[in-house]
Amino acid sequence: MSSRGPSKGDAVVLLSGGVDSATTLAIAVGEGYRCHALSFRYGQRHAVELAAARRVAEALGAIEHRMLSLPLGELGGSALTDRSIAVPTGGADAASGEGIPVTYVPARNTVFLAFALAFAEVTGSDAIFVGVNAVDYSGYPDCRPEYVEAFRRLAALATKRAVEGRGPAIVTPLMNMTKAEIIRTGVRLGVDYSLTVSCYDPDARGRACGRCDSCRLRKKGFQEAGVPDQTVYQPLPSEGEEP
Amino acid sequence: MSSRGPSKGDAVVLLSGGVDSATTLAIAVGEGYRCHALSFRYGQRHAVELAAARRVAEALGAIEHRMLSLPLGELGGSALTDRSIAVPTGGADAASGEGIPVTYVPARNTVFLAFALAFAEVTGSDAIFVGVNAVDYSGYPDCRPEYVEAFRRLAALATKRAVEGRGPAIVTPLMNMTKAEIIRTGVRLGVDYSLTVSCYDPDARGRACGRCDSCRLRKKGFQEAGVPDQTVYQPLPSEGEEP
Repeated sequence: MSSRGPSKGDAVVLLSGGVDSATTLAIAVGEGYRCHALSFRYGQRHAVELAAARRVAEALGAIEHRMLSLPLGELGGSALTDRSIAVPTGGADAASGEGIPVTYVPARNTVFLAFALAFAEVTGSDAIFVGVNAVDYSGYPDCRPEYVEAFRRLAALATKRAVEGRGPAIVTPLMNMTKAEIIRTGVRLGVDYSLTVSCYDPDARGRACGRCDSCRLRKKGFQEAGVPDQTVYQPLPSEGEEP
Repeated sequence: MSSRGPSKGDAVVLLSGGVDSATTLAIAVGEGYRCHALSFRYGQRHAVELAAARRVAEALGAIEHRMLSLPLGELGGSALTDRSIAVPTGGADAASGEGIPVTYVPARNTVFLAFALAFAEVTGSDAIFVGVNAVDYSGYPDCRPEYVEAFRRLAALATKRAVEGRGPAIVTPLMNMTKAEIIRTGVRLGVDYSLTVSCYDPDARGRACGRCDSCRLRKKGFQEAGVPDQTVYQPLPSEGEEP
């Protein structure tokens, strides 16, 4: 991990356990913030990524890691929370294609940022770091720069600290980076990406499927960054399975 | 209940079980919306108000009533969710006085509206009704018109429906009404206020304390509206208690 700069106060960092949020945490720590990592259980198909978030928070030196359970899965409407919708493995619904992927969870970033706002209020944080990215995931409405700008204005009005002129900054360091640039940035800051999980559909051992949109983006990112991909993938059906 | 107008499609209505949200639901039903009522468990000291929300949703003809559990209490920072902070009974912290009351819950309306946005997406709702009011509760930062306006802009960007140009309208019919005007409006629309609960600190039987800021505002509202107050209050200590 990189050396820390002088303390810049407290920050809340949204942490999913994937490549982007791990890199975001490394950036916030590197800038000298005391980082309060925040993760959510929300009816994901697998809890593997929460275990990854726990490892990443510890490895990168977050001063605490909160995990909150949210009832987003009860509302449905997404392949990530609703088992009746299949996770796509490329094609028309791929994140790199047209339209909004079925892995979109309605209002997810608004819900996550709302809790981050509450957490920033109680921790006295001056910043909320979130790893949204408009380059590789432009299909998600709540990853767009204009969305983030609208939340920034909301955060400047929504809380007690905001009324006192200390509403948190909404910091999105990855917004305009490609996946390869994100990975190169993280490697420079000492992120161990073998701790992270990106797959939408890992198996019970936490091994990535290698086929979903998120796996494809991740693989491509490591290739383009020229960084070895240490992700453990499930064996292909033809490869058989060790006992 | 008033007769319904022609159907205007679906709407999400935030429903706490108090005077304001009951009136808001009556207005939305009266305007002809098919109303999806939405309430939250969030570590309140008492569940009495959720039982009230259930009664109100049914009495006013909501087509469904969802109740979601939120971990706002885990974050703390409010007299409403943290037992170590006393509920004020008037004076410097009264809602009608200066500053932000200790009953303020950090980012509560942002969290509630974020879930309303998700619920609007999955129900195909064109509107979110919320009973915020700037007149009697001006101490809360997230009840101010400029806050609502900021959320309105966010809602126009945040979801799949928003991208399709159908982001929900954020409707705040009570914004500029006094408590007396709210009560007169509700009476005209057939609201039975005996079903509602406003108290921050009801007893185990659901009887209102009569002393907290919310009780005081409610009492004053009924007085000024010239409407009989059918709230059941706890006996004063000097009155003794029936067995």
